[in-house]
Amino acid sequence: MLKEQVRAIGIDDAPFEFSQKEVLVIGSVVRAPNYLEGVLSTEVEVDGKDATEKLVDMILDSKFVDQASVVFLDGAAVGGFNLVDLEKLSDSIGIPAVTVSREKPDFESIRKAMKKHFDEWETRFDEMKSGKLYGIETEHKPIYIQKEGIKIKEVKRLIDLFTVRGRLPEPVRISHLVASGVVKGESHGKP
Amino acid sequence: MLKEQVRAIGIDDAPFEFSQKEVLVIGSVVRAPNYLEGVLSTEVEVDGKDATEKLVDMILDSKFVDQASVVFLDGAAVGGFNLVDLEKLSDSIGIPAVTVSREKPDFESIRKAMKKHFDEWETRFDEMKSGKLYGIETEHKPIYIQKEGIKIKEVKRLIDLFTVRGRLPEPVRISHLVASGVVKGESHGKP
Repeated sequence: MLKEQVRAIGIDDAPFEFSQKEVLVIGSVVRAPNYLEGVLSTEVEVDGKDATEKLVDMILDSKFVDQASVVFLDGAAVGGFNLVDLEKLSDSIGIPAVTVSREKPDFESIRKAMKKHFDEWETRFDEMKSGKLYGIETEHKPIYIQKEGIKIKEVKRLIDLFTVRGRLPEPVRISHLVASGVVKGESHGKP
Repeated sequence: MLKEQVRAIGIDDAPFEFSQKEVLVIGSVVRAPNYLEGVLSTEVEVDGKDATEKLVDMILDSKFVDQASVVFLDGAAVGGFNLVDLEKLSDSIGIPAVTVSREKPDFESIRKAMKKHFDEWETRFDEMKSGKLYGIETEHKPIYIQKEGIKIKEVKRLIDLFTVRGRLPEPVRISHLVASGVVKGESHGKP
């Protein structure tokens, strides 16, 4: 596969207040390493359960669905604790899915927060913890990933292919800047 | 000046219906040729008169204001006929401003449309026509520009620096994809 023809979709949500019902989620379609080809968007409920379905619809409705080799997500949830079922996402769109995080998930804090928020906190917590967590070394600090439909060696190759500076693959970094900039008027964080 | 340290802000508006009161406008901050560093946003009135003021505020409020060598705009108006006063914009932010268009403006059609829409159509039309229009040759078809605070030779250099494919500089192309993708759910046109 030629380097310049590899495409990825990167997904991140916008900053939000817990008083909001829904939050903007952005999908950036990028040709390696960082050429933006398209922007997708949807909205998911804050702390809801519709993330997987909304992301599947967003990607399947897009003309880019046949062109992407991987979907990168910024962590395992959007809109607070609206968890993405990685296996269901990957199976439904027919594309491997990979979560990337710069911090190792603090499962004890997540468990406590979920317990406070949800009656069915145990189910949500088990879902979140069910995927194996991998640490991947980079030139800087490691990043942590969960994956579905793809071998770890291929994940490493794709992350390397899409990373220009720092540790985050461009599709996720760009979606973060877009989501944040549209909602706040100026993008912040994750330089 | 080192090539990789030149930054530009590219501005484009989202698609809109004339029933809308306001339309989203995106500013992408890009380091040459196409590394996205930040996303700015604001809203302007459809067919209103606040474009210049809103763009000045959006850019002056940003941390990127001291870093940009040029502001590229997709044409001379946003939100329909909400005209950008290029001289006022450039003077207020202290950065050269350049409009880029892939089509030569059809001033006769614009005049007729303005006459239909506005009592003060003559003033608007004169404002729009007041800037000199330059045709710039590219590898493909020419593009048409108006400019303020910058020599035409430097405009050519900057457009060349920020153009990766086709004729549009990346900051404008990216803003188009973002604005369109956020509002429509998927970006369209201007590949």
